Amino acid sequence: MSSTLTLGNISLSIFGESHGPAIGAVIDNLPAGEELDIERIYKFMARRAPKKDGTSTMRSETDTPEIISGFYNGKTTGEALCAVIKNKDQHSADYKSISELARPGHADYTAFLRYNGSNDPRGGGHFSGRLTAPLVFAGAVCEQMLEKRGITTAAHIYSIAGENDRPFDPVNVNAEQLKLVKTRYLPVLDKNADEKMRSVIDRARNDLNSVGGIIECCAVGFPAGLGSPIYNGIENRVSQLVFGIPAVKGIEFGIGFEAAAIYGSENNDEFYIENGEIKTRTNNSGGILGGISNGMPIIFRAAIKPTPSIARPQNTVNFVKKENSVMEIKGRHDPCVVPRAVPCVEAALNVALMSFLV
Amino acid sequence: MSSTLTLGNISLSIFGESHGPAIGAVIDNLPAGEELDIERIYKFMARRAPKKDGTSTMRSETDTPEIISGFYNGKTTGEALCAVIKNKDQHSADYKSISELARPGHADYTAFLRYNGSNDPRGGGHFSGRLTAPLVFAGAVCEQMLEKRGITTAAHIYSIAGENDRPFDPVNVNAEQLKLVKTRYLPVLDKNADEKMRSVIDRARNDLNSVGGIIECCAVGFPAGLGSPIYNGIENRVSQLVFGIPAVKGIEFGIGFEAAAIYGSENNDEFYIENGEIKTRTNNSGGILGGISNGMPIIFRAAIKPTPSIARPQNTVNFVKKENSVMEIKGRHDPCVVPRAVPCVEAALNVALMSFLV
Amino acid sequence: MSSTLTLGNISLSIFGESHGPAIGAVIDNLPAGEELDIERIYKFMARRAPKKDGTSTMRSETDTPEIISGFYNGKTTGEALCAVIKNKDQHSADYKSISELARPGHADYTAFLRYNGSNDPRGGGHFSGRLTAPLVFAGAVCEQMLEKRGITTAAHIYSIAGENDRPFDPVNVNAEQLKLVKTRYLPVLDKNADEKMRSVIDRARNDLNSVGGIIECCAVGFPAGLGSPIYNGIENRVSQLVFGIPAVKGIEFGIGFEAAAIYGSENNDEFYIENGEIKTRTNNSGGILGGISNGMPIIFRAAIKPTPSIARPQNTVNFVKKENSVMEIKGRHDPCVVPRAVPCVEAALNVALMSFLV
Amino acid sequence: MSSTLTLGNISLSIFGESHGPAIGAVIDNLPAGEELDIERIYKFMARRAPKKDGTSTMRSETDTPEIISGFYNGKTTGEALCAVIKNKDQHSADYKSISELARPGHADYTAFLRYNGSNDPRGGGHFSGRLTAPLVFAGAVCEQMLEKRGITTAAHIYSIAGENDRPFDPVNVNAEQLKLVKTRYLPVLDKNADEKMRSVIDRARNDLNSVGGIIECCAVGFPAGLGSPIYNGIENRVSQLVFGIPAVKGIEFGIGFEAAAIYGSENNDEFYIENGEIKTRTNNSGGILGGISNGMPIIFRAAIKPTPSIARPQNTVNFVKKENSVMEIKGRHDPCVVPRAVPCVEAALNVALMSFLV
Repeated sequence: MSSTLTLGNISLSIFGESHGPAIGAVIDNLPAGEELDIERIYKFMARRAPKKDGTSTMRSETDTPEIISGFYNGKTTGEALCAVIKNKDQHSADYKSISELARPGHADYTAFLRYNGSNDPRGGGHFSGRLTAPLVFAGAVCEQMLEKRGITTAAHIYSIAGENDRPFDPVNVNAEQLKLVKTRYLPVLDKNADEKMRSVIDRARNDLNSVGGIIECCAVGFPAGLGSPIYNGIENRVSQLVFGIPAVKGIEFGIGFEAAAIYGSENNDEFYIENGEIKTRTNNSGGILGGISNGMPIIFRAAIKPTPSIARPQNTVNFVKKENSVMEIKGRHDPCVVPRAVPCVEAALNVALMSFLV
Repeated sequence: MSSTLTLGNISLSIFGESHGPAIGAVIDNLPAGEELDIERIYKFMARRAPKKDGTSTMRSETDTPEIISGFYNGKTTGEALCAVIKNKDQHSADYKSISELARPGHADYTAFLRYNGSNDPRGGGHFSGRLTAPLVFAGAVCEQMLEKRGITTAAHIYSIAGENDRPFDPVNVNAEQLKLVKTRYLPVLDKNADEKMRSVIDRARNDLNSVGGIIECCAVGFPAGLGSPIYNGIENRVSQLVFGIPAVKGIEFGIGFEAAAIYGSENNDEFYIENGEIKTRTNNSGGILGGISNGMPIIFRAAIKPTPSIARPQNTVNFVKKENSVMEIKGRHDPCVVPRAVPCVEAALNVALMSFLV
Repeated sequence: MSSTLTLGNISLSIFGESHGPAIGAVIDNLPAGEELDIERIYKFMARRAPKKDGTSTMRSETDTPEIISGFYNGKTTGEALCAVIKNKDQHSADYKSISELARPGHADYTAFLRYNGSNDPRGGGHFSGRLTAPLVFAGAVCEQMLEKRGITTAAHIYSIAGENDRPFDPVNVNAEQLKLVKTRYLPVLDKNADEKMRSVIDRARNDLNSVGGIIECCAVGFPAGLGSPIYNGIENRVSQLVFGIPAVKGIEFGIGFEAAAIYGSENNDEFYIENGEIKTRTNNSGGILGGISNGMPIIFRAAIKPTPSIARPQNTVNFVKKENSVMEIKGRHDPCVVPRAVPCVEAALNVALMSFLV
Repeated sequence: MSSTLTLGNISLSIFGESHGPAIGAVIDNLPAGEELDIERIYKFMARRAPKKDGTSTMRSETDTPEIISGFYNGKTTGEALCAVIKNKDQHSADYKSISELARPGHADYTAFLRYNGSNDPRGGGHFSGRLTAPLVFAGAVCEQMLEKRGITTAAHIYSIAGENDRPFDPVNVNAEQLKLVKTRYLPVLDKNADEKMRSVIDRARNDLNSVGGIIECCAVGFPAGLGSPIYNGIENRVSQLVFGIPAVKGIEFGIGFEAAAIYGSENNDEFYIENGEIKTRTNNSGGILGGISNGMPIIFRAAIKPTPSIARPQNTVNFVKKENSVMEIKGRHDPCVVPRAVPCVEAALNVALMSFLV
C-alpha cells in the first residue's frame, strides 16, 4: 500500500494528486450517530490554508471538502466517510519545464524511480503538501468526536528557525489553553514569539530562502489505560500518521531526545494521588508508558524541515538524461510551512487517538 | 492488535512475557530459499545480551532461539518463520512484593488499567525489554537476506548521557565501517568515546542511578526507488518498528530536528552525477525523499530514555489501593540499556527494509 | 473496518450510500504506468446497468465513474485510484414510509441495530446493490491490467431459478469463449438458456415475485504458482470479495459441493505433460491446489439469492416500535439481479487476481 | 502474507510444517482476564485426533498444545496467546521417494512453484491437514470465551459421500443440541446416520479410496447487530477462516445454493415479534443480513473434498524432470477427513465470532 493506513478498527485512505481533478480521504469505521458541525470542519481546515500575511504562499486555496458518503441527517452513518476536495487555481505551466529536473529536497527523482516515470509530477503530484488537506479533514472530524468524549487537542509552533515559543506545561496544560491557541493566527502561546517568528520568516522570504521549525502537540482528557505495548502503542500510531506529513523528519514524545542526556532519577515521573486520582509530578513520558496512556497530557513534537522549494538557483540533475544541471524553481512557495503544518500534526493526533476509542 | 505488525507483504508477531515459559516471534512471508547461518544469528543476538563488564545487569540471559518452523535444509521455506526463546533464571520473587506499586517510568500502572489487572506483571511481563529478543532474532534473519542483496546495516551508540561518539558520515559511510562497528564490544566509531561512555555508566551505577542515550543507525546499498509516499514510506515503517522497542522516546531521520533550525538552502541536498550515478552532496534527508529511498545512506537516530528501574527509593502509588507509597526496586538492573538496544534498533531497520523487498 | 479490504499489497475501499451524494472506490497500490481505456471501463460497467428488456428494474442508472486520482496522461500513476459515481434519479420518497419496517431478506433491521439507527436507510443506504458499482469499476480497471498479462476472465449465468446454462468446460475453456460471453446481453454460453431464463424471470415479475441464480466465473492464463496456503490463498481472497456482493449466499471452487459426494479416485485431477507443460486431465480443483494456482482455468460459482424486494404484501415487524406489521414494498425492483451480478462477480475475481500480481 | 490473518482487532498467525520441530498459533488481542480450562481445550483438540475405529488413519497424534505466552494464573493476559504443538511420530521416509512427484489433488507441485522448491515437502509441510491443529487450539480457546457470553457453537457431519445426517433445525436449534452433538464420537444428530457413514468410509478404505462430505456448523446466542456490510461481514470473516482448512472447496450460508432455485417469496424470512423479541419464522438467511447478525442461529455448511492421498496407483508427473509418471502413495492416510474436520470448521466459526466481540 501507499496511502492507506489501518489503525485497529479504523482505516484512512488518502487519495489524489496536487493538480489532478481532486484529492480526498476515506475514513472507515468511525462511530455512527456522531453529529458533525460542518462549519467547524471548514474552520479547522482553514487553519491549514495559506496565510495572507506573507508568512506563506499567495496561492488562493479554498479547500472546501465535499462529504459524499457516511454522513446523513447531520450525523455520521458509521459507514466510510468520504470527502472530496476539488483542485483549482493550478499553474501547471510553472512546473512543466522542470519535470525532468530533481528539485533538491523534493521527491521528484525518487517518485520517478518508484513509479517508472508514470507519476503525476505536476505540483508534486501525490507528494505535494496539498495532500495534507484530506488528513486535516479527517482530523477535523475526529476533533469533534474527541471533544464529545472530553478530550481536547491542540498544536502550537514550538519553534521556527530557532525562534522559540513557550512550550506547553506538560503537567498543567489544560483544555482552555489548548482551545485558545487554536484561535490564533500564528498559533503560539507566547505573543512575543509571534513577532520573532514572523520576522525570521520574512527574512527567509526576502532572501529567497525558507525555514523550518518544530510543532508541539498535546491532548488532555484522554482516558488512562488506552493503547498497547510494542506495535499498537500510542507512539506507533501517532508516528505512522505524523510521518505521513511530507516535511516531517523527526518525532519525539514527552521530553524525547532530551531524555537521552539525563539521569533515570530525573527522567522518571513519580506517581502520587491527588483527589483520589493517580497523577505524575512531572510528565517526561508525555503521558505514555508502555504505549498506553497514563492519564497525564499526551505531548509530542514533530520536526518540520525548511520548504525545499526555494527561488535561488540550485545545482541538481536531470534524472532522465542523467546529467548535471542548474535549476530555478518558479511559482509561489511558502517560505515556511510550519504554521500551515500545525493543524496537520494536530489532525494526525486526532485520528490516532480516535483509533483507540473505536 | 497489540504486538502484531503488518508491513506490506510481511507480518511480524511478537509474543511472550518476561517470566512466562517462553517468548518468540513469527515472521510471515519472508522469501523462500534463503540460506540462514544460524551461528551468525546467535552472534547477532548475543550483541543484545547483558555485557559482563559492568555496563549492564549481571543476569545471565542465554537467549538461544529455537527455530520451530519455516526453516528446512538450512534454508527458509517461505512459510512463517517462528523462533521460540525459552525463559530461565527468573527471580520472580524480586518482583512479587511490588506488584501493586507503580514503578515510576514503567508500564505497571498503565498495563494494570489496560488489562484489568490480568497481565503478567513478573519482570515487566510483555512490557519487558526482554521482548526485544524476538525482534532481534527477526532482524538477524533479515540481516542475512539484506546482505545477499548488497545491503549493509549497522547501528552505533551516538551518545550516552551527553557523551558523544563520532557520528556516521552521512555521505561517505560505507559497508566496511558498518561491519566493523558491529564487532565492537561497545559499538562506537571513536575508540575514545568508549571509555567516556563506560565511565558515565559506571558513575550512574555507583550512584544507584541510570542513564540513557541516542542510537544512530544506517543502511548502505539499499536500492533507490523503494518506499512509498504518505503511509508506507521508509520513515513510517521504521518508526513503527522502532517505537516497538520499550525505551524509545524519539526518532529522527537524516539531520532530523536540526533541520528545524536551518535554512532551506542549507538543508536541501543538491543532486549531482558521479560515474553515471545520481548522488547528493550532502545527505540531510537521511537517504529518504517522499518516503522513498534515493540511493544515499539511510540514516536515523533513536532516543533511549534512562532505565526506569533504579535502586534509589522513589515516591509512587499503590494503584490498587490508590494510596501514596515509597518503593525500592530490588533485583539487578541495567544502569544503561543503550548498548543492548543497539542491535534492537538495527533489527528494526532490517525488518523494515526487508518489507520493501518482498 | 467495514468496507475496506486489504489483500497483500492492494487495498480497496468502497464508500457511499445509495441515495447520498455519491458512491465510489479507492484502489490503492495498483501498478504504475498502466494504460486504461476509459471507454472500455464504461462498457464493463454498463454490463451492470439495469437491462431494458424487462429482466430488471426500469430505473435509469447511468453510473459514469469519474476518476479523480491516480490517473494521468492516460495511465495509472501508481497512487490510489479513486473513482466517484454520482447518485441521481432517487425516489427517496418511495422508501420513506417503510423506514421503520424491516423488509424481509434486507438488512434494514440489522443495520438499525449495528448503527444505532444512524445509518442512511434510503434505498438501502450502504447495503444497496448499488454499492457494487464501485467494485465493478475496480474490476474493470483490473481486467485491463490482467489482459496485458495474458489473463482473461469472464462470468456467465450458470442458472436462474433452476434453468441452467451449459457450464464452462473446466479443462478446455479458453480466452475467446470468455471474451465472447461478455458481449452477450444475457451472458450465457447456450443460446437456448437465454430464452428459458428470460421466461422464468418474466414469470416471477408478473407474479410480483423474484428469482435468484448461480453465477459461474472463470480465469484463463493466470500463471501457475501464485497464491498462498491457509489465509492468503486464491479461495480466501476471492471469497472475501465475492461475499462483499450483497446477495451472495455461497461460493464453491472447482466442482465444489459435488466433491463431497464422490470418491477420491474420481475427484483427484491426474497430472500429465503436454508439450512440456504440466496440466491436469480433469479440473475438479478449479485450478487451485493449496491456495495456489496450478495453471489450469480458475473456476468458481457463487449463489445469488432471489431479490428480497418483492411487491407482494409481506409480514414483518416495525423494529422501532417492536410490533408486528404488514408491508408492501413500493418502487421499482429487479425481479432478478443475477444478470446484473455477473460483472460484479467477475470484478471480484479480477481484483483478487491482481492482488497476487502486485 | 501467507498464514497470518487480521480480523478487526484480532490477528491469528499459524506456523509450522508437518514434519518440522513444531506447529502452532499466535492469537493476538483476545480479551484479558478470561479463565481458560486447559483440560477442556485438550478435549476440544482431541476431537480432531485420528479416530481409533478405522474411520481414519492409525497414526498416533497426541497434539498437546503448550501455551507459552499470554496465559498467567489461569487467565489470559490480553497479550498474544501462543501455543506450540510439538511434532512426533514422523515417518518422513514414507514421503521421501515421492518428493518430485505431484500427488494428485495435493499442493506438491503448486508449492514447489510458489517457493522455488524450498518448501518443506515432508508430510505436506505447511500444506498438511496437521496445520489445522493450531486453528483448533484457537477455536477451543474462543469456545470458552463465547460460552461466557452466552454463545454456543457446534458442527456436525451433514453428509459423507451422499449419506446424510438430519440437518440442524435452522429456527429451533438450541444450545443443548449443540452441546450434545459435540460429545459424539461421530458428530451426527441422527444416530442412524452414524452407521451409514461408517460403512461408506469402510468401503472406501477397503477399496483403497477415499470420500468427502459436508459439515454444517451453527452458533446460537450470538447477539443481533454484530458484523458489517461489504468486506467485514460475518460471511467474509467466516469464509476467510474456513478456506484456511485445506480440503474445503465450498461454503454456503443459510440455505445457500438452494436459494438460487426458489422464489423470493419463499426465500425471504418473515419477521415477527415473540415475547418482545424480533425473530424470523424461517431462517434461510442463516442468521445474517447484510453481513450482520439478526439474532437467529448462524448456520453455514462447508464442502470437504475426498482425501487426495489414496493408495491406488495414480498417473501423475515428476514436476522437476517434467515427465509423466505413475505413483503409489505409501503411508497411512485417512479414507475420510470429514469427522476430523468437524472441530476445525467449528473452530473457524469460533474465531470469526470472537473477532466481532473484541
